[in-house]
Amino acid sequence: MPSRLPPAVENLVRELRKLPGVGEKTAARYVLHLLSRPREDVDALAATVRQVSEHVRPCARCGFLADADLCAFCTDPFRDPSIVCVVEGVSDLLAIEKVGEFAGLYHVLGGAVSALRGVTPEKLRIRQLVDRIDAGGISEVIVATGADAEGETTALYIRKVLEGRNVHVTRPATGIPMGSSIEFLDAVTLLRAFRGRKDL
Amino acid sequence: MPSRLPPAVENLVRELRKLPGVGEKTAARYVLHLLSRPREDVDALAATVRQVSEHVRPCARCGFLADADLCAFCTDPFRDPSIVCVVEGVSDLLAIEKVGEFAGLYHVLGGAVSALRGVTPEKLRIRQLVDRIDAGGISEVIVATGADAEGETTALYIRKVLEGRNVHVTRPATGIPMGSSIEFLDAVTLLRAFRGRKDL
Repeated sequence: MPSRLPPAVENLVRELRKLPGVGEKTAARYVLHLLSRPREDVDALAATVRQVSEHVRPCARCGFLADADLCAFCTDPFRDPSIVCVVEGVSDLLAIEKVGEFAGLYHVLGGAVSALRGVTPEKLRIRQLVDRIDAGGISEVIVATGADAEGETTALYIRKVLEGRNVHVTRPATGIPMGSSIEFLDAVTLLRAFRGRKDL
Repeated sequence: MPSRLPPAVENLVRELRKLPGVGEKTAARYVLHLLSRPREDVDALAATVRQVSEHVRPCARCGFLADADLCAFCTDPFRDPSIVCVVEGVSDLLAIEKVGEFAGLYHVLGGAVSALRGVTPEKLRIRQLVDRIDAGGISEVIVATGADAEGETTALYIRKVLEGRNVHVTRPATGIPMGSSIEFLDAVTLLRAFRGRKDL
């Protein structure tokens, strides 16, 4: 069925469909919404997209988003540079930051080791992590990769790479997540929760 | 909590949150996705947004999206110009078009009469509809506004406005939607389905 939409609209629908979780219907809804807005608003969106594309790049040290050489964390004098939290991606960092507990610096790997998807350790920012530690001043590395197979593999790999270096490598506790009933928990989580049990 | 994201990223998140159904998490996911794409892709998105903003406008006759004076329907010699289907919005038109049954032209009102939201008939493209009919050549107007209170009000208003004009005004049938069980249908739908019953 040939669409009767102007090519510009078709193109925008196609571009928006590349966003995660956006199908044709959602993309069309976005476009129709944009067309119902004042022209300035739509131009503002285009301008901000272009600005991000032009000015945002990974922090040279930790890999978080930055618009200068270093990001807002790495240049913050109030963060503790002796503790580095290793995460797979920027969204993990943002989730941790929301908790407000961690006050050290970060290291964004850019993914997790995955044989299935061909992600070797060399494709992640692990070399840069080792360099940061070798540069000195870091006493603890919290490996906050995911608690799934790929995240665990990545964590084990990092532990191995950092062996012999004078740094304390830790991992966030695994166990029963808050609010969940025992009944519906998977066996691995329960196993770990029991093995990691603490005095009440 | 002050965000540590570069201002350009914050701005884009803010712009994307204006899209329908997009909250902060979704907007952030879109931005992180864009940042993971090659720069050309992101620039392509910005360019298509701008193109839509620059080149797409309502068809001067029917109100559908066009990149010229008239839209693809109004300039299509294979569509029957004697039947006009009136819809509230562009997405209604697209849904009808997907069925492939209707081969006439359209008239997009740009909404439905709503006292609650202050949408008076003057704010809709009803005057333009009357003008099209007065210009001649139209034998039937199918009023395919929604089967809700506002759509019904709009349909009744259009019927009244077109009274005395030499045009057949129809409305799509209301009744039980396919695939639904009688049990869960609302009373109004059932009432209409019974009143509109047909020989089996």
